[in-house]
Amino acid sequence: MIILGLDPSLSCTGWGVIRTEGSRISHIANGQIKTGVNTPMAQRLADLHSGLAAVIAEFAPDRAAAEEVFVNKNPQSTLKLAQARGAILASCGAAGLGVNEHAARKVKKAVVGTGSAEKSQVQAMLRVLLPGAQIAGADAADALAVAIADAHLAPR
Amino acid sequence: MIILGLDPSLSCTGWGVIRTEGSRISHIANGQIKTGVNTPMAQRLADLHSGLAAVIAEFAPDRAAAEEVFVNKNPQSTLKLAQARGAILASCGAAGLGVNEHAARKVKKAVVGTGSAEKSQVQAMLRVLLPGAQIAGADAADALAVAIADAHLAPR
Repeated sequence: MIILGLDPSLSCTGWGVIRTEGSRISHIANGQIKTGVNTPMAQRLADLHSGLAAVIAEFAPDRAAAEEVFVNKNPQSTLKLAQARGAILASCGAAGLGVNEHAARKVKKAVVGTGSAEKSQVQAMLRVLLPGAQIAGADAADALAVAIADAHLAPR
Repeated sequence: MIILGLDPSLSCTGWGVIRTEGSRISHIANGQIKTGVNTPMAQRLADLHSGLAAVIAEFAPDRAAAEEVFVNKNPQSTLKLAQARGAILASCGAAGLGVNEHAARKVKKAVVGTGSAEKSQVQAMLRVLLPGAQIAGADAADALAVAIADAHLAPR
Protein backbone atom coordinates (compact mmCIF):
# COMPACT_ATOMS: atom_id res chain seq x y z
CA MET A 1 0.00 0.00 0.00
CA ILE A 2 1.36 3.42 -0.95
CA ILE A 3 0.04 6.36 1.08
CA LEU A 4 0.31 10.05 0.16
CA GLY A 5 0.27 12.37 3.16
CA LEU A 6 -0.63 16.01 2.58
CA ASP A 7 -0.19 19.25 4.48
CA PRO A 8 -2.00 21.76 2.27
CA SER A 9 -1.32 25.48 2.44
CA LEU A 10 -1.36 28.26 -0.12
CA SER A 11 2.29 29.28 0.16
CA CYS A 12 3.83 25.85 0.73
CA THR A 13 2.02 22.51 0.53
CA GLY A 14 3.94 19.58 2.00
CA TRP A 15 3.61 16.07 0.64
CA GLY A 16 5.09 12.74 1.69
CA VAL A 17 4.81 9.26 0.22
CA ILE A 18 5.34 6.09 2.26
CA ARG A 19 4.98 2.39 1.63
CA THR A 20 3.34 0.04 4.13
CA GLU A 21 3.84 -3.71 4.10
CA GLY A 22 2.05 -5.33 7.01
CA SER A 23 3.23 -3.30 10.01
CA ARG A 24 6.39 -2.11 8.23
CA ILE A 25 6.61 1.43 6.97
CA SER A 26 9.22 2.82 4.61
CA HIS A 27 9.89 6.21 3.05
CA ILE A 28 9.48 6.70 -0.68
CA ALA A 29 9.66 10.47 -1.23
CA ASN A 30 8.65 13.85 0.14
CA GLY A 31 8.66 17.45 -0.96
CA GLN A 32 7.03 20.86 -0.87
CA ILE A 33 5.06 22.73 -3.54
CA LYS A 34 5.61 26.46 -3.19
CA THR A 35 3.64 29.24 -4.84
CA GLY A 36 4.68 32.84 -5.41
CA VAL A 37 3.40 35.47 -2.98
CA ASN A 38 3.03 37.94 -5.86
CA THR A 39 1.38 35.45 -8.20
CA PRO A 40 -2.40 35.94 -8.74
CA MET A 41 -4.54 33.69 -6.53
CA ALA A 42 -6.06 31.64 -9.36
CA GLN A 43 -2.58 30.89 -10.72
CA ARG A 44 -1.26 29.91 -7.27
CA LEU A 45 -4.15 27.48 -6.88
CA ALA A 46 -3.52 26.10 -10.38
CA ASP A 47 0.16 25.64 -9.47
CA LEU A 48 -0.78 23.64 -6.36
CA HIS A 49 -3.21 21.53 -8.39
CA SER A 50 -0.79 20.74 -11.19
CA GLY A 51 2.18 20.32 -8.82
CA LEU A 52 0.33 17.69 -6.84
CA ALA A 53 -0.95 16.02 -10.01
CA ALA A 54 2.69 15.50 -11.02
CA VAL A 55 3.50 13.94 -7.62
CA ILE A 56 0.50 11.60 -7.87
CA ALA A 57 1.46 10.61 -11.43
CA GLU A 58 5.02 9.83 -10.35
CA PHE A 59 4.33 7.81 -7.19
CA ALA A 60 0.87 6.34 -7.91
CA PRO A 61 -0.38 6.28 -4.31
CA ASP A 62 -3.30 4.02 -3.36
CA ARG A 63 -4.84 6.61 -1.10
CA ALA A 64 -4.19 10.02 0.43
CA ALA A 65 -4.52 11.51 3.90
CA ALA A 66 -4.60 15.02 5.36
CA GLU A 67 -5.18 16.61 8.72
CA GLU A 68 -8.68 17.85 9.38
CA VAL A 69 -8.78 21.56 8.74
CA PHE A 70 -7.94 23.80 11.57
CA VAL A 71 -10.51 26.60 11.48
CA ASN A 72 -8.48 29.67 12.25
CA LYS A 73 -9.83 32.58 14.27
CA ASN A 74 -8.85 34.78 11.36
CA PRO A 75 -11.49 34.12 8.68
CA GLN A 76 -9.17 35.36 5.90
CA SER A 77 -6.53 32.79 6.90
CA THR A 78 -9.12 30.02 6.99
CA LEU A 79 -10.31 31.11 3.57
CA LYS A 80 -6.83 31.00 2.03
CA LEU A 81 -6.09 27.64 3.59
CA ALA A 82 -9.42 26.16 2.51
CA GLN A 83 -9.01 27.40 -1.05
CA ALA A 84 -5.56 25.80 -1.24
CA ARG A 85 -7.00 22.63 0.21
CA GLY A 86 -9.75 22.66 -2.41
CA ALA A 87 -7.22 22.81 -5.25
CA ILE A 88 -5.16 20.03 -3.64
CA LEU A 89 -8.11 17.73 -2.93
CA ALA A 90 -9.43 18.27 -6.47
CA SER A 91 -6.12 16.93 -7.74
CA CYS A 92 -6.55 13.80 -5.57
CA GLY A 93 -10.12 13.35 -6.73
CA ALA A 94 -9.12 13.67 -10.39
CA ALA A 95 -6.73 10.75 -9.84
CA GLY A 96 -9.44 8.70 -8.15
CA LEU A 97 -7.75 8.92 -4.75
CA GLY A 98 -9.78 8.87 -1.58
CA VAL A 99 -8.56 11.27 1.10
CA ASN A 100 -8.76 10.22 4.75
CA GLU A 101 -8.91 13.05 7.26
CA HIS A 102 -7.45 12.82 10.74
CA ALA A 103 -7.56 15.23 13.66
CA ALA A 104 -4.17 16.81 14.39
CA ARG A 105 -4.13 15.28 17.90
CA LYS A 106 -4.67 11.80 16.47
CA VAL A 107 -1.81 12.27 14.04
CA LYS A 108 0.55 13.24 16.86
CA LYS A 109 -0.68 10.41 19.04
CA ALA A 110 -0.17 7.89 16.24
CA VAL A 111 3.36 9.11 15.47
CA VAL A 112 4.74 10.12 18.87
CA GLY A 113 2.36 8.45 21.32
CA THR A 114 0.86 11.63 22.70
CA GLY A 115 -1.65 14.04 21.18
CA SER A 116 0.11 17.04 22.71
CA ALA A 117 3.52 16.35 21.16
CA GLU A 118 5.61 19.29 19.96
CA LYS A 119 6.58 19.64 16.31
CA SER A 120 10.19 18.85 17.25
CA GLN A 121 9.11 15.54 18.81
CA VAL A 122 7.21 14.61 15.66
CA GLN A 123 10.24 15.39 13.53
CA ALA A 124 12.55 13.39 15.82
CA MET A 125 10.20 10.41 15.59
CA LEU A 126 10.15 10.70 11.79
CA ARG A 127 13.93 10.27 11.80
CA VAL A 128 13.45 7.05 13.78
CA LEU A 129 10.54 5.70 11.74
CA LEU A 130 11.90 6.67 8.33
CA PRO A 131 15.68 6.29 8.77
CA GLY A 132 17.77 7.99 6.09
CA ALA A 133 14.89 10.01 4.65
CA GLN A 134 15.95 13.50 3.58
CA ILE A 135 13.04 15.68 4.60
CA ALA A 136 12.42 18.76 2.47
CA GLY A 137 11.14 20.97 5.27
CA ALA A 138 8.62 21.39 8.08
CA ASP A 139 5.60 21.05 5.79
CA ALA A 140 6.94 17.88 4.17
CA ALA A 141 7.57 16.53 7.69
CA ASP A 142 3.96 17.22 8.65
CA ALA A 143 2.81 15.47 5.49
CA LEU A 144 4.91 12.38 6.26
CA ALA A 145 3.49 12.34 9.80
CA VAL A 146 -0.05 12.32 8.41
CA ALA A 147 0.83 9.47 6.06
CA ILE A 148 2.27 7.41 8.93
CA ALA A 149 -0.73 8.17 11.11
CA ASP A 150 -3.02 7.11 8.30
CA ALA A 151 -1.21 3.79 8.02
CA HIS A 152 -2.04 3.20 11.71
CA LEU A 153 -5.49 4.73 11.86
CA ALA A 154 -7.26 3.96 8.62
CA PRO A 155 -8.94 0.68 7.82
CA ARG A 156 -7.18 -1.22 5.05
CA MET B 1 -14.22 40.74 -24.69
CA ILE B 2 -15.72 37.53 -23.34
CA ILE B 3 -16.29 37.43 -19.57
CA LEU B 4 -16.95 34.33 -17.46
CA GLY B 5 -18.94 35.03 -14.30
CA LEU B 6 -18.77 32.48 -11.49
CA ASP B 7 -20.86 31.68 -8.44
CA PRO B 8 -18.85 28.89 -6.79
CA SER B 9 -20.40 26.46 -4.33
CA LEU B 10 -19.78 22.82 -3.53
CA SER B 11 -23.21 21.50 -4.44
CA CYS B 12 -23.96 23.75 -7.41
CA THR B 13 -21.56 26.18 -9.05
CA GLY B 14 -23.18 28.66 -11.41
CA TRP B 15 -21.40 30.02 -14.46
CA GLY B 16 -22.36 32.55 -17.10
CA VAL B 17 -20.57 33.79 -20.21
CA ILE B 18 -21.25 37.18 -21.78
CA ARG B 19 -19.75 39.20 -24.61
CA THR B 20 -19.04 42.91 -24.30
CA GLU B 21 -18.55 45.20 -27.28
CA GLY B 22 -18.11 48.78 -26.19
CA SER B 23 -21.05 49.35 -23.84
CA ARG B 24 -23.12 46.54 -25.38
CA ILE B 25 -23.53 43.28 -23.51
CA SER B 26 -24.88 40.06 -24.93
CA HIS B 27 -25.49 36.59 -23.54
CA ILE B 28 -23.42 33.66 -24.77
CA ALA B 29 -24.21 30.80 -22.40
CA ASN B 30 -24.84 29.86 -18.77
CA GLY B 31 -25.17 26.74 -16.69
CA GLN B 32 -24.67 25.00 -13.37
CA ILE B 33 -22.16 22.35 -12.34
CA LYS B 34 -23.69 20.08 -9.71
CA THR B 35 -21.89 17.56 -7.53
CA GLY B 36 -23.36 14.59 -5.70
CA VAL B 37 -24.11 14.97 -1.99
CA ASN B 38 -22.98 11.38 -1.39
CA THR B 39 -19.84 11.68 -3.53
CA PRO B 40 -16.54 11.89 -1.58
CA MET B 41 -15.29 15.46 -1.11
CA ALA B 42 -12.13 15.06 -3.23
CA GLN B 43 -14.20 13.73 -6.13
CA ARG B 44 -16.76 16.54 -5.83
CA LEU B 45 -13.94 19.09 -6.00
CA ALA B 46 -12.43 17.28 -8.99
CA ASP B 47 -15.85 17.34 -10.69
CA LEU B 48 -16.09 21.12 -10.18
CA HIS B 49 -12.55 21.59 -11.50
CA SER B 50 -13.04 19.48 -14.61
CA GLY B 51 -16.58 20.75 -15.22
CA LEU B 52 -15.36 24.33 -15.28
CA ALA B 53 -12.34 23.41 -17.40
CA ALA B 54 -14.78 22.13 -20.05
CA VAL B 55 -16.74 25.40 -19.93
CA ILE B 56 -13.54 27.45 -20.30
CA ALA B 57 -12.37 25.27 -23.19
CA GLU B 58 -15.70 25.70 -24.97
CA PHE B 59 -16.19 29.45 -24.59
CA ALA B 60 -12.58 30.71 -24.33
CA PRO B 61 -13.29 33.68 -22.03
CA ASP B 62 -10.77 36.52 -21.79
CA ARG B 63 -11.21 36.86 -18.05
CA ALA B 64 -13.31 35.63 -15.15
CA ALA B 65 -15.08 37.27 -12.23
CA ALA B 66 -16.57 36.10 -8.95
CA GLU B 67 -18.11 37.66 -5.89
CA GLU B 68 -15.79 38.17 -2.96
CA VAL B 69 -16.27 35.35 -0.50
CA PHE B 70 -18.90 35.76 2.08
CA VAL B 71 -17.37 34.53 5.32
CA ASN B 72 -20.19 32.61 6.94
CA LYS B 73 -20.74 32.53 10.68
CA ASN B 74 -20.67 28.76 10.40
CA PRO B 75 -16.99 27.87 9.92
CA GLN B 76 -17.88 24.51 8.35
CA SER B 77 -19.96 26.26 5.68
CA THR B 78 -17.16 28.72 4.98
CA LEU B 79 -14.75 25.82 4.69
CA LYS B 80 -16.89 23.94 2.17
CA LEU B 81 -17.48 27.06 0.11
CA ALA B 82 -13.80 28.03 0.14
CA GLN B 83 -12.69 24.54 -0.87
CA ALA B 84 -15.11 24.60 -3.81
CA ARG B 85 -13.86 28.04 -4.71
CA GLY B 86 -10.27 26.78 -4.61
CA ALA B 87 -11.05 24.02 -7.11
CA ILE B 88 -12.90 26.48 -9.36
CA LEU B 89 -10.20 29.17 -9.25
CA ALA B 90 -7.50 26.56 -9.91
CA SER B 91 -9.34 25.72 -13.12
CA CYS B 92 -9.30 29.40 -14.14
CA GLY B 93 -5.61 29.70 -13.29
CA ALA B 94 -4.75 26.60 -15.31
CA ALA B 95 -6.32 28.31 -18.33
CA GLY B 96 -4.38 31.51 -17.69
CA LEU B 97 -7.53 33.43 -16.72
CA GLY B 98 -7.37 36.27 -14.25
CA VAL B 99 -10.27 36.37 -11.80
CA ASN B 100 -11.63 39.74 -10.71
CA GLU B 101 -13.41 39.79 -7.36
CA HIS B 102 -16.29 42.10 -6.57
CA ALA B 103 -18.20 42.69 -3.35
CA ALA B 104 -21.78 41.39 -3.49
CA ARG B 105 -23.17 44.90 -2.94
CA LYS B 106 -21.19 46.24 -5.88
CA VAL B 107 -22.51 43.48 -8.11
CA LYS B 108 -26.10 44.33 -7.19
CA LYS B 109 -25.46 48.04 -7.58
CA ALA B 110 -23.93 47.51 -11.04
CA VAL B 111 -26.80 45.32 -12.25
CA VAL B 112 -29.87 46.81 -10.54
CA GLY B 113 -28.66 50.22 -9.39
CA THR B 114 -28.85 49.55 -5.68
CA GLY B 115 -26.57 47.48 -3.45
CA SER B 116 -29.49 46.25 -1.38
CA ALA B 117 -31.43 44.73 -4.31
CA GLU B 118 -33.31 41.48 -3.77
CA LYS B 119 -32.41 38.37 -5.75
CA SER B 120 -35.71 38.69 -7.62
CA GLN B 121 -34.79 42.21 -8.75
CA VAL B 122 -31.41 40.99 -10.02
CA GLN B 123 -33.12 38.21 -11.97
CA ALA B 124 -35.71 40.60 -13.43
CA MET B 125 -32.91 42.92 -14.58
CA LEU B 126 -31.08 39.98 -16.17
CA ARG B 127 -34.16 39.36 -18.33
CA VAL B 128 -33.94 42.99 -19.48
CA LEU B 129 -30.18 43.06 -20.01
CA LEU B 130 -29.89 39.63 -21.63
CA PRO B 131 -33.18 39.29 -23.53
CA GLY B 132 -34.04 35.76 -24.61
CA ALA B 133 -31.38 34.11 -22.44
CA GLN B 134 -32.58 30.82 -20.95
CA ILE B 135 -31.15 30.87 -17.44
CA ALA B 136 -30.32 27.48 -15.91
CA GLY B 137 -31.15 28.41 -12.33
CA ALA B 138 -30.50 30.78 -9.44
CA ASP B 139 -26.77 30.05 -9.32
CA ALA B 140 -26.35 30.61 -13.06
CA ALA B 141 -28.28 33.88 -12.66
CA ASP B 142 -25.89 35.01 -9.92
CA ALA B 143 -22.95 34.11 -12.16
CA LEU B 144 -24.35 36.15 -15.06
CA ALA B 145 -24.90 39.08 -12.70
CA VAL B 146 -21.23 38.94 -11.65
CA ALA B 147 -20.15 38.85 -15.29
CA ILE B 148 -22.27 41.91 -16.10
CA ALA B 149 -21.01 43.75 -13.02
CA ASP B 150 -17.45 42.92 -14.05
CA ALA B 151 -18.04 44.42 -17.47
CA HIS B 152 -19.02 47.67 -15.73
CA LEU B 153 -16.54 47.64 -12.86
CA ALA B 154 -13.30 46.21 -14.12
CA PRO B 155 -10.73 48.14 -16.07
CA ARG B 156 -10.36 46.92 -19.65
